[in-house]
Amino acid sequence: MSNVLKVELGVRSYQIEIGRDLLESLGQICRDCGLADRALLVSDTNVAPLYADVCADSLVAAGFELMRVVLPPGEATKCEECLFELYDAALDHGMGRNSFVVALGGGVVGDISGYMAASYLRGIPFVQVPTSLLAMVDSSVGGKTGINLPKGKNLVGAFHQPAAVLADVASLESLPVREWRAGLAEVVKYGVIFDGDFFEFLERNVERLVSRDVDVARAVVLRSCEIKAEVVHRDERENGLRAILNFGHTLGHAIENAAGYGEYLHGEAVAVGMVYAATLSNRQAGFDEADTVRLCSLLTALGLPVRAQGMDWLRLKDIMKRDKKAENGKPRFVLARRIGDAQPGYICDEPLCGEVWDDCGQ
Amino acid sequence: MSNVLKVELGVRSYQIEIGRDLLESLGQICRDCGLADRALLVSDTNVAPLYADVCADSLVAAGFELMRVVLPPGEATKCEECLFELYDAALDHGMGRNSFVVALGGGVVGDISGYMAASYLRGIPFVQVPTSLLAMVDSSVGGKTGINLPKGKNLVGAFHQPAAVLADVASLESLPVREWRAGLAEVVKYGVIFDGDFFEFLERNVERLVSRDVDVARAVVLRSCEIKAEVVHRDERENGLRAILNFGHTLGHAIENAAGYGEYLHGEAVAVGMVYAATLSNRQAGFDEADTVRLCSLLTALGLPVRAQGMDWLRLKDIMKRDKKAENGKPRFVLARRIGDAQPGYICDEPLCGEVWDDCGQ
Repeated sequence: MSNVLKVELGVRSYQIEIGRDLLESLGQICRDCGLADRALLVSDTNVAPLYADVCADSLVAAGFELMRVVLPPGEATKCEECLFELYDAALDHGMGRNSFVVALGGGVVGDISGYMAASYLRGIPFVQVPTSLLAMVDSSVGGKTGINLPKGKNLVGAFHQPAAVLADVASLESLPVREWRAGLAEVVKYGVIFDGDFFEFLERNVERLVSRDVDVARAVVLRSCEIKAEVVHRDERENGLRAILNFGHTLGHAIENAAGYGEYLHGEAVAVGMVYAATLSNRQAGFDEADTVRLCSLLTALGLPVRAQGMDWLRLKDIMKRDKKAENGKPRFVLARRIGDAQPGYICDEPLCGEVWDDCGQ
Repeated sequence: MSNVLKVELGVRSYQIEIGRDLLESLGQICRDCGLADRALLVSDTNVAPLYADVCADSLVAAGFELMRVVLPPGEATKCEECLFELYDAALDHGMGRNSFVVALGGGVVGDISGYMAASYLRGIPFVQVPTSLLAMVDSSVGGKTGINLPKGKNLVGAFHQPAAVLADVASLESLPVREWRAGLAEVVKYGVIFDGDFFEFLERNVERLVSRDVDVARAVVLRSCEIKAEVVHRDERENGLRAILNFGHTLGHAIENAAGYGEYLHGEAVAVGMVYAATLSNRQAGFDEADTVRLCSLLTALGLPVRAQGMDWLRLKDIMKRDKKAENGKPRFVLARRIGDAQPGYICDEPLCGEVWDDCGQ
């Protein structure tokens, strides 16, 4: 059984297929969406031993000329060197404008492969096969692709919609527990910014989430993708509404950056950032203090951090000022008015930001 | 006096202003098209001493925070290293999504600056201020941006339309004569592919073109931009018609590549490529042999080469097979049916391609 979700973006519309044991159908799905010629299958050394063969066999059986590239795992892979390694591989494979890229892995593989596809020959198609929860619910939907620079995350990139997304929830079983939890942070975010009922569903299903129940996993991936697809449909290029997806990310990105990428997983930093944003929301947007407590409880029950002790506030503040969403050196926050309703574009005074940092018990 | 030409591309529409002594109005024009905040002015060591100050003064007077970057001149600048140098400069300058890039120079500066703007923070606006004839009539119009890889030209890039184009024909007076002539090759191309009357106009005005008469220069820039804008309007992403702009470029690109970039100027290689394409057109598309003679005469009268003696055909053939427009390893050509009417997408047999190479007297 699988669910198919259509992301409506005019000529750039595409389908997300969510279910179990879908990887065998990858080749057929690529054919169905009109892809042809040569494929570059990109994964990392964690994911390749588990799933690359089944994907490769499926692609070859469907008649594609295949080349594989296996990158090192982790955020450091989203870099200039790996990007140019992918360009080189594609050239060696004789890939033209009819060729395409398959990103098999987590957010890192999806982001760099997607950006490579966006820029190689001014853009070729790509297919997302997310294997981590974070990638399924977040990075594989919406078309944001990119790499990091030494000075910050995602500073170079493109909006490039995939031709298809294939989320095989069976692949979640092999995910390290820490990454599973980190992915849940983004799931919780969807509840806070868009759907109070979904937030309550998560509260009621903490145990099944912790034990990685496959039916709950599918439900959670589906609802998260629906919400993200809806937001992206309304605002593909992040001119307004789409920015709500960054709830918890202003501080979250700064924590990842200050701690050195890899120290905090993205979802862990976002969990801390959401608690901070909720506290700021209470001071600036009428968010109920009791809901901040609910958020903290849910994140804690899911095994996620709610504070980042030992971090230097002055450093974080400085990094937030240089965030690409900052305006004239002032960081911008997404704040929630209540659970299920967030608004982007808040600019908060520096003293208040510092106070709230202290309030969060750092 | 200046002419304003509107390129109609929906929300990505923009204006090309063509005239004399326009650089003083750069700041105001940037304001008029809604740009704000910080600007990165990119030029090269040939152009900066001549025109960077007047542009910078104009931008500063209009209230923009300005940073300048001066790159080395020449095709080798369209590389990974210079691209990442531009990202770094933009970060150092505190550039956010409201900031913009001004490309002051020839095609190289326009291509790399435009691609930097396309990819920095997933895309910021940019303004083209072409100072070479080639950049005015070709690279600054149409939104193609990119860099080269060691294995070929323009292999990495994006479609990114400028916010405005400012073509100050006074800057053509400082252009080295060889570059002036090379730019005329693209002008001749517009006649061949789209407008027989314009081709005749060029034949009638050879002397004024050679002497760089400013009124003829303005007329030639205007008509070339009109043709390119019309073609791009009909097919922005090069799914069909736009490919006719590559008349002469299949072989032209291969010549540039085989000779080592810089040995042949782009326009010189295109001139040779057009004669080759015309000869192929005679064999495959009913192009009149007398018109090939007219094309050779016009190019020769303008001081352009019509053959590339000493080049190794096997090498050129191999490079053409790896061209990004090649399909399944077969180069594709734009052929002309008569002067003023070209069609893309011709695939020609290898033996014929070799015969025609010999016919061209190489």
